[in-house]
Amino acid sequence: MEKKISLEVIKRLPRYYRYLTELLESGITRISSKELSERMGATASQIRQDLNCFGGFGQQGYGYSVEVLHDAIGEILGLNNHYKTIIVGAGNLGKALAHYKGFEKRGFKLCAIFDIDQSKIGTVIDDLTIQNLDCLEQVVQKERPTIAILTVPKSAADTIAQRLVNCGVKGLLNFCYVDIDVPAGVTVENVHLSDSIMRLAYKISNNL
Amino acid sequence: MEKKISLEVIKRLPRYYRYLTELLESGITRISSKELSERMGATASQIRQDLNCFGGFGQQGYGYSVEVLHDAIGEILGLNNHYKTIIVGAGNLGKALAHYKGFEKRGFKLCAIFDIDQSKIGTVIDDLTIQNLDCLEQVVQKERPTIAILTVPKSAADTIAQRLVNCGVKGLLNFCYVDIDVPAGVTVENVHLSDSIMRLAYKISNNL
Repeated sequence: MEKKISLEVIKRLPRYYRYLTELLESGITRISSKELSERMGATASQIRQDLNCFGGFGQQGYGYSVEVLHDAIGEILGLNNHYKTIIVGAGNLGKALAHYKGFEKRGFKLCAIFDIDQSKIGTVIDDLTIQNLDCLEQVVQKERPTIAILTVPKSAADTIAQRLVNCGVKGLLNFCYVDIDVPAGVTVENVHLSDSIMRLAYKISNNL
Repeated sequence: MEKKISLEVIKRLPRYYRYLTELLESGITRISSKELSERMGATASQIRQDLNCFGGFGQQGYGYSVEVLHDAIGEILGLNNHYKTIIVGAGNLGKALAHYKGFEKRGFKLCAIFDIDQSKIGTVIDDLTIQNLDCLEQVVQKERPTIAILTVPKSAADTIAQRLVNCGVKGLLNFCYVDIDVPAGVTVENVHLSDSIMRLAYKISNNL
C-alpha cells in the first residue's frame, strides 16, 4: 500500500466499506463494478478508477472478491488496528454514542466514558461505568486509548482536548461546536451537527 | 444574491456563520479579514475571496460589519426561513438531538418527534410529547415541517423517508447508516457517524 491515494478517493472509502460490509453480511462473495455502481449510485468507471488507486483487485469476467476488497479497504482505513476509544462527556449525545453499536462493529473498542456530574458518575451504560473526569489521566495511562470522542460543552473542549493530547491520545472525534487546536501528530475529525442542518437548509432554499 | 456561489465556498459558510455568531455574542461589531483569518485558521486572502463571492461587505480600513455579514450568510444558508423540523425515531440518538439546543438556535424549530415504541409514546422530551408514528401524516399535514431528522433503524429508513416525502417534507437529515433514495426536489444530508470515525482512523494510521 505504498502508492499515494488522493484525498478524494479516501473520502469515499468509508462508503465503499459500508456497502462491502452489507454485501458480506448478505452472503455475496463477488461483485462486478457494474453491479456495485448500481447499488452505490456511482458510475462503474468511477468505481474501477477508485479501486485501481489501491491496487485494483478486480478480475476480468469475475469482478471483485467482496471479502478481499472489504479487508483491503479496512486495512487502508486502519480499522485492523482496533483502536481503543473513550468518550468524554456523558450528556445525552455522549450516552447515545455509548449505546451506538456502529463504532464497535467497525473495530473501535469503547473502553471508558467520563463525566464531571456526580449524579452520573458510577452509573452504567451497557457494560461501561461512567467515571469521574478527575481520573482521566489515570485511566488513559492504563487503557491506552488512541481515540477520544468529545461531547462536552464547548467552553470545556479546549482544556479537555489538551489533557487528552498530553496523555497520548492520537485522535479526537469532536462533537463540540467549536474548532479545536491540537499539536502536530494529533488528528481531529469534526462532526458539527448544526453545520449539517445548515447545509441542508441551504440546499432546500436553493432547490439543489 | 443572484451570483452563482461555488460549492466549495458554500461548504465553508456554516463555519463562517458559527464564528460570526460567536463574535456577535461577545459583542464584537466589526472585524478585519486579518483578525477573522487568525481566529479561523485560514488565510486572510481566502476569507476575502470567499466573502467577495456573495457581494463582499468589507470596507477598506474598517473591515466587515459582523452583523451584516452574519445576516447575509444566514440568508444565503436559508436560515431566515425558520424551517420547521421533526425527528423520526426517539431512540438514544433521537432523544439526544431533541435535547440539543444548536438546531433551534440557528432557526430550526422542532415541532414533533415520533416513535413506534408504545413505552415511549406519550412521554415528554423538553416540551415535546413523543407521538405514535401512525400519526405521522396527520401531524405533518397540520404542522407542515420542511425538514425531518431521521434516526430510525436502517431497515426502516427507506419506507419512512418515502412517507415523509409523500406528505411534503423537503429535506432529510439522515443519521441512518444507509443511503436513501429520494425523488428530485427532495434533499438529503447524511450524518454517517461511522464514516467519521473511519476517516479519523485513516488519518491516525497514516500520520496525517
